[in-house]
Amino acid sequence: MKLSARNQFQGTVTRITEGQAMAEVAVKVGNLEFIAAITEGSVKNMGLKLNDSVTVAVKATEVMIGK
Amino acid sequence: MKLSARNQFQGTVTRITEGQAMAEVAVKVGNLEFIAAITEGSVKNMGLKLNDSVTVAVKATEVMIGK
Amino acid sequence: MKLSARNQFQGTVTRITEGQAMAEVAVKVGNLEFIAAITEGSVKNMGLKLNDSVTVAVKATEVMIGK
Amino acid sequence: MKLSARNQFQGTVTRITEGQAMAEVAVKVGNLEFIAAITEGSVKNMGLKLNDSVTVAVKATEVMIGK
Amino acid sequence: MKLSARNQFQGTVTRITEGQAMAEVAVKVGNLEFIAAITEGSVKNMGLKLNDSVTVAVKATEVMIGK
Amino acid sequence: MKLSARNQFQGTVTRITEGQAMAEVAVKVGNLEFIAAITEGSVKNMGLKLNDSVTVAVKATEVMIGK
Repeated sequence: MKLSARNQFQGTVTRITEGQAMAEVAVKVGNLEFIAAITEGSVKNMGLKLNDSVTVAVKATEVMIGK
Repeated sequence: MKLSARNQFQGTVTRITEGQAMAEVAVKVGNLEFIAAITEGSVKNMGLKLNDSVTVAVKATEVMIGK
Repeated sequence: MKLSARNQFQGTVTRITEGQAMAEVAVKVGNLEFIAAITEGSVKNMGLKLNDSVTVAVKATEVMIGK
Repeated sequence: MKLSARNQFQGTVTRITEGQAMAEVAVKVGNLEFIAAITEGSVKNMGLKLNDSVTVAVKATEVMIGK
Repeated sequence: MKLSARNQFQGTVTRITEGQAMAEVAVKVGNLEFIAAITEGSVKNMGLKLNDSVTVAVKATEVMIGK
Repeated sequence: MKLSARNQFQGTVTRITEGQAMAEVAVKVGNLEFIAAITEGSVKNMGLKLNDSVTVAVKATEVMIGK
């Protein structure tokens, strides 16, 4: 499936901090670290675990620019 | 100012596509290209132009993971 | 690819309104109509057209509840 | 009040998973299930409970398309 | 209807900049000015016009903090 | 740093509710109260505490209008 989100990068899961409703997932993409706040349910549904190869995806409307 | 957005990366503006209400801005971060959809007003207010050194910022709640 | 977005529904594209930076896409899912504002670049990249079978995807953090 | 969010559907609350800061709410809309991650404070403020008749609302800028 | 969005403020429309797919709406709330990027379709559907009394609504997950 | 987010207001932190992955922060801006759901990691990274002078920032694409 091709997704309309304009920002999609391949990386590796380096940390998962689980909570009751939400979880925080860190993904290393090259030398950058992305942080995703997703539902705890998604972590369970996807069976996300350390070292998984994943894609981080962000819609263009969610990207800000600072100068 | 330190911003709560967990994803902040330094890059360079490589393209600005202007519209009436919204604009699309491409930013090169290392070998990744980020696409931001921001208001045309922000492009004007910030005086954004090609080759500007900028920060792309994304809130963790906006980052998805695909596996 | 399995995406962390908790809301994913199958539908059919019923309208595409193109703009300079952004486009509006209507998708019929059963008897519901979803409206997506995505970049014009995504419409082009995906070759989106009327009657395409598509998935609409929404992150749980973007869903509000009214009562 | 008429809300600008382009995606608004009537449904019924089928599950509430509470956490410290955030909660996850499932809403059945016809044969679709929507998942909303809202603040625990909203669950309390609205007095949300199982079987409540609710509206799910999503801004068009938050809807992605996969093909 | 009570909406789960935690940030809701009453104001007055002071400017509408229309585009093809998106529009920008300015709303004065006390001495603050809010800027909303909504679909052009919402402006039409709601019959939004200058001096309308409106509510601006923002989900808590969309609010960042800078320090 | 000048940020593209069109809604930026100065205020004071009046409450922090911490969770495992997410936290809720209340900020008083004049006589308005903003609620931000940010990651618990951001609260820690920024050393956010009561009475801190902060900026609340919201992207225009995240602002809805009700009428």
